Amino acid sequence: MTTKEFDAKINNTILKLSEPESYKQLCHEHHQGEPLPSIKNLTKVIDLVREILFPGYFGTTTLRTGTTQHYMGVYIDELFELLSGEILAGMCFECNDDSDNKVSIHNERAKKIAVDFIEFLPEIRRMLGTDVEATFLNDPAARNFGEVIFSYPGIRAIMNYRVAHKLLQLEVPLIPRFISEMAHSETGIDIHPRAQIGEKFTIDHGTGVVIGSTAILGNNVKIYQGVTLGAKSFPLDEEGNPIKGIPRHPILEDDVVIYAGATILGRVTIGKGSVIGGNVWVTNSLPPNSRVVQKRPKDIPFTDGAGI
Amino acid sequence: MTTKEFDAKINNTILKLSEPESYKQLCHEHHQGEPLPSIKNLTKVIDLVREILFPGYFGTTTLRTGTTQHYMGVYIDELFELLSGEILAGMCFECNDDSDNKVSIHNERAKKIAVDFIEFLPEIRRMLGTDVEATFLNDPAARNFGEVIFSYPGIRAIMNYRVAHKLLQLEVPLIPRFISEMAHSETGIDIHPRAQIGEKFTIDHGTGVVIGSTAILGNNVKIYQGVTLGAKSFPLDEEGNPIKGIPRHPILEDDVVIYAGATILGRVTIGKGSVIGGNVWVTNSLPPNSRVVQKRPKDIPFTDGAGI
Amino acid sequence: MTTKEFDAKINNTILKLSEPESYKQLCHEHHQGEPLPSIKNLTKVIDLVREILFPGYFGTTTLRTGTTQHYMGVYIDELFELLSGEILAGMCFECNDDSDNKVSIHNERAKKIAVDFIEFLPEIRRMLGTDVEATFLNDPAARNFGEVIFSYPGIRAIMNYRVAHKLLQLEVPLIPRFISEMAHSETGIDIHPRAQIGEKFTIDHGTGVVIGSTAILGNNVKIYQGVTLGAKSFPLDEEGNPIKGIPRHPILEDDVVIYAGATILGRVTIGKGSVIGGNVWVTNSLPPNSRVVQKRPKDIPFTDGAGI
Amino acid sequence: MTTKEFDAKINNTILKLSEPESYKQLCHEHHQGEPLPSIKNLTKVIDLVREILFPGYFGTTTLRTGTTQHYMGVYIDELFELLSGEILAGMCFECNDDSDNKVSIHNERAKKIAVDFIEFLPEIRRMLGTDVEATFLNDPAARNFGEVIFSYPGIRAIMNYRVAHKLLQLEVPLIPRFISEMAHSETGIDIHPRAQIGEKFTIDHGTGVVIGSTAILGNNVKIYQGVTLGAKSFPLDEEGNPIKGIPRHPILEDDVVIYAGATILGRVTIGKGSVIGGNVWVTNSLPPNSRVVQKRPKDIPFTDGAGI
Amino acid sequence: MTTKEFDAKINNTILKLSEPESYKQLCHEHHQGEPLPSIKNLTKVIDLVREILFPGYFGTTTLRTGTTQHYMGVYIDELFELLSGEILAGMCFECNDDSDNKVSIHNERAKKIAVDFIEFLPEIRRMLGTDVEATFLNDPAARNFGEVIFSYPGIRAIMNYRVAHKLLQLEVPLIPRFISEMAHSETGIDIHPRAQIGEKFTIDHGTGVVIGSTAILGNNVKIYQGVTLGAKSFPLDEEGNPIKGIPRHPILEDDVVIYAGATILGRVTIGKGSVIGGNVWVTNSLPPNSRVVQKRPKDIPFTDGAGI
Amino acid sequence: MTTKEFDAKINNTILKLSEPESYKQLCHEHHQGEPLPSIKNLTKVIDLVREILFPGYFGTTTLRTGTTQHYMGVYIDELFELLSGEILAGMCFECNDDSDNKVSIHNERAKKIAVDFIEFLPEIRRMLGTDVEATFLNDPAARNFGEVIFSYPGIRAIMNYRVAHKLLQLEVPLIPRFISEMAHSETGIDIHPRAQIGEKFTIDHGTGVVIGSTAILGNNVKIYQGVTLGAKSFPLDEEGNPIKGIPRHPILEDDVVIYAGATILGRVTIGKGSVIGGNVWVTNSLPPNSRVVQKRPKDIPFTDGAGI
Repeated sequence: MTTKEFDAKINNTILKLSEPESYKQLCHEHHQGEPLPSIKNLTKVIDLVREILFPGYFGTTTLRTGTTQHYMGVYIDELFELLSGEILAGMCFECNDDSDNKVSIHNERAKKIAVDFIEFLPEIRRMLGTDVEATFLNDPAARNFGEVIFSYPGIRAIMNYRVAHKLLQLEVPLIPRFISEMAHSETGIDIHPRAQIGEKFTIDHGTGVVIGSTAILGNNVKIYQGVTLGAKSFPLDEEGNPIKGIPRHPILEDDVVIYAGATILGRVTIGKGSVIGGNVWVTNSLPPNSRVVQKRPKDIPFTDGAGI
Repeated sequence: MTTKEFDAKINNTILKLSEPESYKQLCHEHHQGEPLPSIKNLTKVIDLVREILFPGYFGTTTLRTGTTQHYMGVYIDELFELLSGEILAGMCFECNDDSDNKVSIHNERAKKIAVDFIEFLPEIRRMLGTDVEATFLNDPAARNFGEVIFSYPGIRAIMNYRVAHKLLQLEVPLIPRFISEMAHSETGIDIHPRAQIGEKFTIDHGTGVVIGSTAILGNNVKIYQGVTLGAKSFPLDEEGNPIKGIPRHPILEDDVVIYAGATILGRVTIGKGSVIGGNVWVTNSLPPNSRVVQKRPKDIPFTDGAGI
Repeated sequence: MTTKEFDAKINNTILKLSEPESYKQLCHEHHQGEPLPSIKNLTKVIDLVREILFPGYFGTTTLRTGTTQHYMGVYIDELFELLSGEILAGMCFECNDDSDNKVSIHNERAKKIAVDFIEFLPEIRRMLGTDVEATFLNDPAARNFGEVIFSYPGIRAIMNYRVAHKLLQLEVPLIPRFISEMAHSETGIDIHPRAQIGEKFTIDHGTGVVIGSTAILGNNVKIYQGVTLGAKSFPLDEEGNPIKGIPRHPILEDDVVIYAGATILGRVTIGKGSVIGGNVWVTNSLPPNSRVVQKRPKDIPFTDGAGI
Repeated sequence: MTTKEFDAKINNTILKLSEPESYKQLCHEHHQGEPLPSIKNLTKVIDLVREILFPGYFGTTTLRTGTTQHYMGVYIDELFELLSGEILAGMCFECNDDSDNKVSIHNERAKKIAVDFIEFLPEIRRMLGTDVEATFLNDPAARNFGEVIFSYPGIRAIMNYRVAHKLLQLEVPLIPRFISEMAHSETGIDIHPRAQIGEKFTIDHGTGVVIGSTAILGNNVKIYQGVTLGAKSFPLDEEGNPIKGIPRHPILEDDVVIYAGATILGRVTIGKGSVIGGNVWVTNSLPPNSRVVQKRPKDIPFTDGAGI
Repeated sequence: MTTKEFDAKINNTILKLSEPESYKQLCHEHHQGEPLPSIKNLTKVIDLVREILFPGYFGTTTLRTGTTQHYMGVYIDELFELLSGEILAGMCFECNDDSDNKVSIHNERAKKIAVDFIEFLPEIRRMLGTDVEATFLNDPAARNFGEVIFSYPGIRAIMNYRVAHKLLQLEVPLIPRFISEMAHSETGIDIHPRAQIGEKFTIDHGTGVVIGSTAILGNNVKIYQGVTLGAKSFPLDEEGNPIKGIPRHPILEDDVVIYAGATILGRVTIGKGSVIGGNVWVTNSLPPNSRVVQKRPKDIPFTDGAGI
Repeated sequence: MTTKEFDAKINNTILKLSEPESYKQLCHEHHQGEPLPSIKNLTKVIDLVREILFPGYFGTTTLRTGTTQHYMGVYIDELFELLSGEILAGMCFECNDDSDNKVSIHNERAKKIAVDFIEFLPEIRRMLGTDVEATFLNDPAARNFGEVIFSYPGIRAIMNYRVAHKLLQLEVPLIPRFISEMAHSETGIDIHPRAQIGEKFTIDHGTGVVIGSTAILGNNVKIYQGVTLGAKSFPLDEEGNPIKGIPRHPILEDDVVIYAGATILGRVTIGKGSVIGGNVWVTNSLPPNSRVVQKRPKDIPFTDGAGI
């Protein structure tokens, strides 16, 4: 390949990739001065929230008696800056307004929402306290609260969920979903930020857990890895597309336990105190205190050598 | 422990770890000047490809009318540098040639392949466009294309797959597999780069999905978390080791849907338009428009207090 | 919102978040000079161990004949510094002693343990060599040892496990669990560091695998994605909390294979050479050479249009 | 020192440092949302300008025929973002307005100025081209233009000056001075951005050069290290403070050469083509083509052993 | 060069460089666990001190009413950690004790000194306040205090001096000298930390200023670039080496001004209110209110064409 | 300014900056695959050399008995990689060959030179050892060798010079000059890499020192800040440009001392053991043991109030 051929091929491809036809639906065009959601800043937001909620665990400096308030003050300050910026970016992302003052329109509201969120942090800490305690009590392998806070993926996923859920309640676009995906990527636990989840929530191991957007979970619920709380079918609109926003995921009442790999589909209600066994498939409602397990398989002899 | 004892223990271990016998099969010895695959650079390659395919979503700067071509030009330039370097590193990695000009032998071909790959990018963008659209239409919780592109793990995994698949077709060693693993680590979705997958492909949630190396998927296929398209058994060669390269994974025809946790094993064909229910286990072919669900479990009363 | 209102809301929240009542159980208070476990340093520890065990694969510089010993010497040196620091941090983390010389009390022991661990590295390399070989032989898609070492998530998870297991045997608190979680986050494979696992261990794909803390696995065991080796029920103490430390996870004897999505619960023994099919649910012991598969589902016609 | 004493001392100092009396004149209080000049971003601004003016020398990627325009496009884009932000920060820095919309007041003007500056870049490149050529011709040790551009501190200082001078003409506060100081710190050459300097300007070695704010230099001027173009005396106002803004530094006409360590003070004019010798002290005007050297010292015998 | 020759040359050089004879005086051998002074941490120390002394100028976050105390609290905390570590490293650096508890011996004292230094910060702020004010009043080009604090190299050098001087008074080894060198490298101003300097100190431009270790400067002194306050001769001891610690640098009384390039050598006293002209050479004491200027050079015709 | 006007202005400027006419002499055009000198890598080269020459002072890890050889081995390895790359980049930079195998032509020679340089490192260490000792003996304020090595700018500048000088002897283009400029920027000491300098060289304070490219310095020379060893005049060629390469800088014989601010110009010889006083101007040769000082200025009364 001569340099000339090389240049021709490269330049030709650049032209193709620059044709608006080729990217018009896959492109995010910015208005001048409009901020873009920043994965790096959202990561910092979550790190700050984690250090605020669990003081002394994730920061880089020694926390001592009498210094907590200083750290809270500084962290809240940093959080406000970063979070209001990301909320603004999320608003611009979904806003189709073409006016030049798009940013200033959203800016005031973004700041207001950031303050509202910050005011809710003490309540998030209280709720996460119940989750940590429940997780500790439920896991015979846990040695102390510290280990649960420092290294349990369930707690990390629940924290991101509680943060994302509040932001979604405050009508922040895009950002809540991304915060959920951050936890999903780190832990394999996929909780839609719109789901409603009570206190004392435990997720053990967690990889493969999916909790859909209209699911409702009471207090003291415990689920294991691979549990799906999903939709059974999507009512279609006249054009054959799924109708959005209809309740289509399960309701788990208080004190429900669901073991690994179980799948519960549709707007069914699992009654208070029920226990669903591993790998079970449930598509209808169950009364309180139900017990469901998978029927035991038969042993079947194999005829081929190595596999099944 | 005295300083003397400490030094003796440490030095003794260093000697043991430096004995060629102890690492001969676990070591990658380089020839002078031979590049090593760089995880950092491969990460940059993927980031660049993502920004090229979805302009304005992942870069750090504002994209505006009239500037797209500049960005495409610069990104393609950077991509060529990084990718040709990694392809070369992959070639050296698998090359047992001991000659001193090993690197220059491979260098020309590495550059040629990088150009071939770059020329294919418009087609990858076109295909991913169909994936994004299908994902949006299939998920009632998705608000717009932007959200799908920015935060859906399925799209991230499919993009890495389409990139890795092309590189594998161009006979690049090692790198395609690693690009797949990057997506696997981030999303829990494990697609072998050798698999063949049509357009309009949707993966929802995705954690735990496995698609084997000889699997073939038609257009408009949709799969959920935990779905395995695996091998049933491996024919063994005379020495009892699995024979490599034999077709051993499923074929899914167009418009197939497979729900969460289903397992399809072996070189079976799932006919056009079929729907496989969650947690179902399939090891034989199915005609078009088949419907398969797991038999409902019985409710079984428990006798012990806490578990199952 | 006026600046005054803004300041009032923010300051009020800072005060709430600084009330000891609100964080007393969720806070890690440090004694002066006491080190905190550092996720960044633990990441470096694992990177160093990986380069020591698999020379030439993950470092940044060319490894050549005659230079291995230099690299081993420098890496061991760096490892000692970092690891003894993290062990010390782990000890302080779980130590409730309030005395001022808490750090110096633990310091000597932390160094001693770091040396003991380093002395065990040749043995970890030997064991991982058997794992790499078994993984290569078991996967028809694997091209060579290098590919397995460089990109297979199973090897990464097993390496972290073997490191964490040794540290736990040396009675290091907190750190082993965190090293396991690092692999869990990267690979979706969750192996408790207290589990006991023999040589030639293969995990393929791996997402969703859970191996509990009292599980025992023999040599030449192979498991696939989504396999759970879990507890069936937890005996409760008089206050209704799970009793910690009781054997409650399965024993897999040599040469056992467990396919994707299978769940084995409780202190059961799966006999030598047994094969458990995908998605199977096992809660009782099986004799050697057992074969278990899930009963085949019936085809069931659907009545609704789009879903199941 | 007990922990109690330690805490008391530290807390007491924190209180002292937080008393507004102690910092009121030394503090920069921000209004909410007001950007702060960023040394990091200003460094990036200068790096971008350098790569734009001297394509291919300082960037990280290969520049080839046909790609220049892409790089220019992307760099200008990035420059606009960063520079308009820093200009805005500079404006807010010096603005004593307390109104809440301080930022939006300045924002439009900051963008306008950034565009004006960018439009002037081709002229800055043209002028720097004459500086590079003059520097090359004047230095027998210079091998080619490339060496001059890549490593001569004089060129670096002149570039920063030409950039800062234009920004000052555009009435940007604070930033021009800081850009000058960046070059001062790197090269030891201190050119006030308000000085007026013609084309073909050469500074050789340069450490210790000082060019005052009201100095005027013609074309083809050459100066060496340690040259001061300073003020002789400052007229005082009624309160005894220096009156600001009065012309008080020298005028150098075209083709003047000033050798190392010479000092020229006050509003004097050094006529066209004059040559001032090293270490000379000049406080009065000189006609064109003057030649001034320091009177030769006498040799003086020493009486003490080691020093002078 | 064959690979064999290459390896031989490299290995031979490594051996030579590893012979203790070749480095014994040029090597810093550490005891196990002994910290090394960290240029990176000392840079952070200075950055923290600068932000503490001049709140709002150099930090990364918005400073607002009511948050100052939080920032002071957090910064002091971080400063204590870093500074006590560097003081300890400096102590170990100069300590020839070979005992194993070398570190713990010095640790308590290092912490004590760090606290003493922190308690002195309010006084350093007060003194720097007088320096900032004097610098502003002395420079007609200065627009406001903010510009002086943000970008004047004199202030940066004086701050490092005042910090280093206090640490030296507290008998910290090595670190003070290095902090002075940091300012020297950035600004070209070389103030020995042992020098004694009063309030309201101004250095303008500053490149090339040298202030020796036994110099004493009163209040309201002003010096320009290139001024040397040096030693004239060093009394030698019996072996012909300079005797250390003897007063050998000038004393400048209050209100002295020294213009650019002047050199004052030896233990002479420049009386209150004196003014020394540029490039002047002074080696004897002067009474108060002296005025000294360099004798004017003669104009001398040149005979050669281009130089002097 | 409307968006349209903005785009027009920006795009117009991009076009102007992309016109080859506007940058043809100021641009460095790369051939494909040709490396560019990297300031970042050259910084690493110098850091590595410094740690190799002065073991234990600048590295990040503890150096202990028995580990020196490991560190030397690893550092030499890294140095070879980086340095041979930068030498190659320097060669390509000055090579006007347009052939496609430009890089491979230079590559072998670049590696050969890197090895030659590495073989010379023990000699550089030996010479620097004499410089450190001389610096320590000459400065009454120096406390020990460690302080001199760790923080004296003279040593830093001499080290860069000795490295650059050797590379220049090995005919490496561009890189030696840049390494000199790195020291110039950090220390204000500007030594041309072509100058010839003997052992036991001391530079005290150093800011403003300039040593020209054809200067020759014997052993045991000591110079202070602001000393210039420069050219007096440049013989011109027929076109009026300076003739390059003619000896035009001073020769200092052994044991010469030159005090602060002295200027010595032209190809003169300062005889063995001579002492030149501060601020003196010398343009003729001096016999051995000369003593030259500046004639003392007269005190001259001032008539104006504030300045001189």
